[in-house]
Amino acid sequence: MSTYQVIFQPSGRRGRVEEGKTLLEASRELGVDIEAVCGGAKKCGKCKVKIEEGFFEKFNIDSKMGNLSPFQPEEEGKFITEEMIGDGYRLACIAKVQGDILVFVPEESRGATQVVLEIGKEGRVFNLDPAVTKYYVELKPATLEDHTGDYERLAEALHKKYNLPPNLGIDYFCLNQLPNVIRDGNWNVTATVWNDKEIIHVESGLVEKCVGLAVDIGTTTVAAYLCDLKTGETLVRDSMMNPQVRYGEDVLSRITYHMMNDDGMEKMHNAIIEGLNTLAARMTKKIDMTPNDILEVTLVFNTVMQHIALNIDPKFVGRSPFTAGVKSSLDIKARDLGIKVNRCANVHTLPVEAGFVGPDNVSVLIAEEPYKQDKEIRLVIDIGTNGEIDVGNSKKLMCTSCATGPALEGAQIKFGMRAAPGAIERILIDPESLEPTYKVIGKEEWYPDIEKTDAKGICGSAIIDIIAELFKTGIINKSGRFNLKQLEAKTPRVRKGEDGRPEYVLAWAKETSIGKDVTITQGDVRAVQLAKAALYCGAEYLMEKYGVNKVDSVTLAGAFGSYIDRESALTMGMFPDCELEKVQAVGNAAGDGAKLALLDRGKRKEAMEVAHSVEFVETAVEPDFQDRFALAMAFPHATHKFPSIQHILDKIPKR
Amino acid sequence: MSTYQVIFQPSGRRGRVEEGKTLLEASRELGVDIEAVCGGAKKCGKCKVKIEEGFFEKFNIDSKMGNLSPFQPEEEGKFITEEMIGDGYRLACIAKVQGDILVFVPEESRGATQVVLEIGKEGRVFNLDPAVTKYYVELKPATLEDHTGDYERLAEALHKKYNLPPNLGIDYFCLNQLPNVIRDGNWNVTATVWNDKEIIHVESGLVEKCVGLAVDIGTTTVAAYLCDLKTGETLVRDSMMNPQVRYGEDVLSRITYHMMNDDGMEKMHNAIIEGLNTLAARMTKKIDMTPNDILEVTLVFNTVMQHIALNIDPKFVGRSPFTAGVKSSLDIKARDLGIKVNRCANVHTLPVEAGFVGPDNVSVLIAEEPYKQDKEIRLVIDIGTNGEIDVGNSKKLMCTSCATGPALEGAQIKFGMRAAPGAIERILIDPESLEPTYKVIGKEEWYPDIEKTDAKGICGSAIIDIIAELFKTGIINKSGRFNLKQLEAKTPRVRKGEDGRPEYVLAWAKETSIGKDVTITQGDVRAVQLAKAALYCGAEYLMEKYGVNKVDSVTLAGAFGSYIDRESALTMGMFPDCELEKVQAVGNAAGDGAKLALLDRGKRKEAMEVAHSVEFVETAVEPDFQDRFALAMAFPHATHKFPSIQHILDKIPKR
Repeated sequence: MSTYQVIFQPSGRRGRVEEGKTLLEASRELGVDIEAVCGGAKKCGKCKVKIEEGFFEKFNIDSKMGNLSPFQPEEEGKFITEEMIGDGYRLACIAKVQGDILVFVPEESRGATQVVLEIGKEGRVFNLDPAVTKYYVELKPATLEDHTGDYERLAEALHKKYNLPPNLGIDYFCLNQLPNVIRDGNWNVTATVWNDKEIIHVESGLVEKCVGLAVDIGTTTVAAYLCDLKTGETLVRDSMMNPQVRYGEDVLSRITYHMMNDDGMEKMHNAIIEGLNTLAARMTKKIDMTPNDILEVTLVFNTVMQHIALNIDPKFVGRSPFTAGVKSSLDIKARDLGIKVNRCANVHTLPVEAGFVGPDNVSVLIAEEPYKQDKEIRLVIDIGTNGEIDVGNSKKLMCTSCATGPALEGAQIKFGMRAAPGAIERILIDPESLEPTYKVIGKEEWYPDIEKTDAKGICGSAIIDIIAELFKTGIINKSGRFNLKQLEAKTPRVRKGEDGRPEYVLAWAKETSIGKDVTITQGDVRAVQLAKAALYCGAEYLMEKYGVNKVDSVTLAGAFGSYIDRESALTMGMFPDCELEKVQAVGNAAGDGAKLALLDRGKRKEAMEVAHSVEFVETAVEPDFQDRFALAMAFPHATHKFPSIQHILDKIPKR
Repeated sequence: MSTYQVIFQPSGRRGRVEEGKTLLEASRELGVDIEAVCGGAKKCGKCKVKIEEGFFEKFNIDSKMGNLSPFQPEEEGKFITEEMIGDGYRLACIAKVQGDILVFVPEESRGATQVVLEIGKEGRVFNLDPAVTKYYVELKPATLEDHTGDYERLAEALHKKYNLPPNLGIDYFCLNQLPNVIRDGNWNVTATVWNDKEIIHVESGLVEKCVGLAVDIGTTTVAAYLCDLKTGETLVRDSMMNPQVRYGEDVLSRITYHMMNDDGMEKMHNAIIEGLNTLAARMTKKIDMTPNDILEVTLVFNTVMQHIALNIDPKFVGRSPFTAGVKSSLDIKARDLGIKVNRCANVHTLPVEAGFVGPDNVSVLIAEEPYKQDKEIRLVIDIGTNGEIDVGNSKKLMCTSCATGPALEGAQIKFGMRAAPGAIERILIDPESLEPTYKVIGKEEWYPDIEKTDAKGICGSAIIDIIAELFKTGIINKSGRFNLKQLEAKTPRVRKGEDGRPEYVLAWAKETSIGKDVTITQGDVRAVQLAKAALYCGAEYLMEKYGVNKVDSVTLAGAFGSYIDRESALTMGMFPDCELEKVQAVGNAAGDGAKLALLDRGKRKEAMEVAHSVEFVETAVEPDFQDRFALAMAFPHATHKFPSIQHILDKIPKR
């Protein structure tokens, strides 16, 4: 049989291919990735390629349309317009090699590989390789002579067409629907396969949509992302308060609730599962899908949230020697957890590092990848009710956790709220007039450019802003106390509140949608001080253990709304000094990591590796913790120097 | 380091062993299987061995007690009595090699390998190698320095002590109990591992009991066996009517019920699952256990019963081309099927051959092993509502199925009943007086040796007896008709029944516990004729396809009670002629196969192999089926010769 020279552009891959093979077959032989959702069944039209004619001289081949088999009715009209025909388009699954040919694979026909997850300013690049993939097959109908069972017929077809393992398993609840699904599709079906191991879903005919759900279960906030597993795109993002908040504000109080109440664990477990079910239902509804369409779920959480969500007794995590019931990553059937997505879907949880440093920090690490940094020593802080801190690079990585409390997420703050429409998300205070300008989520313009802002409260990023601004303008002093006496006369915004303690009025009642002055109180300032002191001390100890007194960069992550302002964070002393331009806020990196683990199996492997290699340090048990904590309560710190923001500190009015 | 000669008896295995190794370690090195449930943790006392002193000359070694390390307190009293010490007993896990030694391993200390499953006269020999095994481990308690998770600690210990795979999985519902189970057992636990793959149960401390359930789900009868997976012993046997009987008497009428009723499938599925749950509960109760103790289940059934039990639509099995939804063997979590045993237990189903020839025939084949027969050509008949027939040997094996109907199991028979106390199980009729002698289950003596027999009805084995006896004594003729006119005057036992049709009185009302005459009616005879003709035709066609007109042996299996009488079976013409002494009744071979698959993983592999290799023949579609069926209705057959029982046939009185 004759062979011909086939070259694929833009990759430039080339080789000799037997006459009569389709371009799709040729592309596979030569290692070129052409999208073909239907697997070459002439159904999906995704494998469009363009024939480059007349490249004889450059490539030493005589490429022309006539070197391919003639046009077929399946190509014309439906998939390739008349205009495209003129431009040399063909379907790779139909056109057969009959001579030397040069093929251009357009962007949209290239098998997706590298994808960018969009976050704030930059993106995270990853391989799109999700744990679940859909495969379309056309089965040979059963006959009296062919006694193959339905399942065996499907498994064999998947093996032959897609080279999946011959002993592919099948989820029982998928199997028991199989005979009807196959016949409803007239022997053409789309099978969803999990990890090249198990058929978890079979649909009649060709189905392309394939979605998964990534969730970051924080102590206070639950952030969820519905993702397209074919493109890597985030289709819907949503969040809610963790419904367990009513049982305790932080991880230790949740453990206590469980130990004090016989049904405490059951209540908290059910609360988060119901929360997940609510999110799955309302998120799929937004894009006209149902929870049944969700075929894979990834979950990240701190160790205590993990134990409660998985209904594993967390009390041993909370007491010395702080032992987790399980540290490995897990794949659990959604139905066994009571999570109402596709009943055959799996829930993948990332691994625990140690103590309270759980899958959520692993998630931050696989998103931020400090272990890929060769020289720079990075400080990565994930700000949550339970804060997690990492220091290091590819040579060594250490981690710890600290009890931050929920203040930075808006809880325990008088007017604190989730980052949702109506939340003040950004604030500046004029150092002379002490008047604020602020921005509310859902409004384009800032106050006072608009008078009615409909503000309802303050979300995390603004809480950090306002504390920094109060300090920079001398409204509060280094120790966090309001300079009430000096300022009461100067501005009505600084006043005694109903409880007799000082407060600052951010928004007057008439600007808001709640008919009340939105204020930040002395109590709020104290709550933030406790939180930032915990983070500061954690970072300080960790850097000491690591053997550095200054890091090269700081990454701030957290699920508290929009990106926090690095200057505000450093000015209030949330972490030891660092060049300001080397401080970066990256939003909810734990959520990004959950998405990455949903979209790329390689990231799951990376997660297990980093969870094993990162070195855990217990900092809260250090003998001088109390003393250090007290010093770190001050803005930015009682004794430490902050050369990077000295120019800002110098400008603070003395009162 | 010195080495010494160690010899184990009775196996005779020997070798040099390093000084200081325990006898248990030595036995493992030399490939001797000593029972040690606790894995050498000095807890179970199972590894008793006897030191044979003074065998210097015979074995050229100087064996004496002094060649072992001294007695330890753990050995004395609790496990080894004073008398045993004198006899030279030691625990192999404690005694260390300090010189040449000859060790006798008593029967009870030998690791169980070959076990006999008792059936009727003979036994089935198999390897005791169940899919679930219990392992005892003593874990190192967690410390602040050791951050290992509970699950990882357990998996590592199982790997180190028992060489189980390092990546052993764990069932989610087992994992979520783990932290408390480990601490309740003070870090000593017994883990049940399924197929060397997954931890499915963890119990505090050392637990030895390990039971499984094998069930043969027939169309009419469900037979269940609760087995000890440590010894292979059958602890409890039980049976019930298949609760689906109310929805249809045979497989086709069940399929019809499903197709005619929207909730038909749900009802039938739930009925059998509830039936299994009832059996599991009452069988475990008999030995003071609970269903939670059942850690593995094997199920066999015909293809339609399989589909209904697994909630897979059976309608495509019932219509051409008779395609099964799944043919492979399956492992399904019991909880997913709603079967209330241990929630982490697996249910193993044997594979389907083809059409209606399902896992139950595979089960008969792995029990009877005709594929291990090199020369003899065997005919194996499994008599049930759906009959399955196999012909062949190691060279070739063929199978078919036939619609026998439930008559031979006692259904459709006026006084038919399950083999239970009160059922007549054996009958002879005197050719002169036409008086019966019969035996009732639960009574030692036969009627008329006892007058009050408390008979309630007739079970399968007696139904076959009585038809054969009625024919042999000329009460019914070759065509199955009662010789009413000739005999009415001769004996009151032959009479017209309430329906005006002839019947034979087996037991007078006063003998019974139901206060009614127990009779066999003309209708009963017809039902048996239909059943035996179906079996005969199936065998006849199969032998034709196979290319033999006589088989070397016949094996009769079925779940209809006690072993059927071969002479009765052949006299009524249940199968083509065969030497009478080569006909063997083996009871419920399908049930035995289910037990074997429960107790020996090797049998599961054998099942997959034979299901693949046996050749399925569809006989009911043959064009001359009706004609052949009519001829086979006669006793023993309208035209075929039966030289093996000619002497019996010759004695039948002409009436």
